[in-house]
Amino acid sequence: MNAEFFKQFADIPVREIQPGFFSKIIHTKANTIAFLEVKAGCAIKSHQHVEEQYSFVIEGQFELTVDGNPQVLDANTFAIIPSNVFHSGRAVTDCKLLDIFSPVRMAFKYD
Amino acid sequence: MNAEFFKQFADIPVREIQPGFFSKIIHTKANTIAFLEVKAGCAIKSHQHVEEQYSFVIEGQFELTVDGNPQVLDANTFAIIPSNVFHSGRAVTDCKLLDIFSPVRMAFKYD
Repeated sequence: MNAEFFKQFADIPVREIQPGFFSKIIHTKANTIAFLEVKAGCAIKSHQHVEEQYSFVIEGQFELTVDGNPQVLDANTFAIIPSNVFHSGRAVTDCKLLDIFSPVRMAFKYD
Repeated sequence: MNAEFFKQFADIPVREIQPGFFSKIIHTKANTIAFLEVKAGCAIKSHQHVEEQYSFVIEGQFELTVDGNPQVLDANTFAIIPSNVFHSGRAVTDCKLLDIFSPVRMAFKYD
C-alpha cells in the first residue's frame, strides 16, 4: 500500500472527544474530517466554534439541535452548522457520524 | 425541519457524473462533498484536476489507482489524491463512496 496516497483507519488513534463520542480525526490543509461512533444516549452539550460544520449520519439516529431547533437526523438527512452558531446533540441509537469542519478545527489538533 | 440548518438527500438531484457513477453533490463555501453509488464493474478512466481529493469507501470495494499505484479500498482505508495527480478507479463490488474535494470542484457546478 503506497503510504503517500493510501491510509488505513487502523493507524488513526481513537479520541474520546466527549464522553461516549469516539472519533477518528483527519486533518487536511482545508478541513477537519471526523468519523465518530456514539453510543445511544450519549450527549454533547451546547457549544459553538468558529469553524463551519457539515454533519452526516452514516448509521443510526442522532438528534441535533442547532440554534434552538431540534431535529432527529438519519442517513437521509444532514445538517449545516454555520460559524459560531450554538449546537448540541444526543445519540438516539448507537450511531456512526461524519463531521466535516472548515477550516481545520484547531481544538481537534492533538499533536 | 428548519431548512436553514437541516437538509434532505431526497432534495438533491442525482447526477451520473460518469457512466454508472451516480452522485449526490453538495457544494459548501470551501468544499465539494460527493456521495456516490457505483455499480460493480463500472470504471472511471485516468483524469486529473486541480482540486485535492479525499476518497472514502462507505460500503463495498473500490479499486483506485493514483499516480500508477493501484489499491483496492474498503471501509477500513481511504485515499488522498493531491492536486493535479492522475487517478482512475473501478468498482470491484457495488459500492457507496464519499469524495471530499478542496476547494470547490468547479466541474461539478451544474447550476
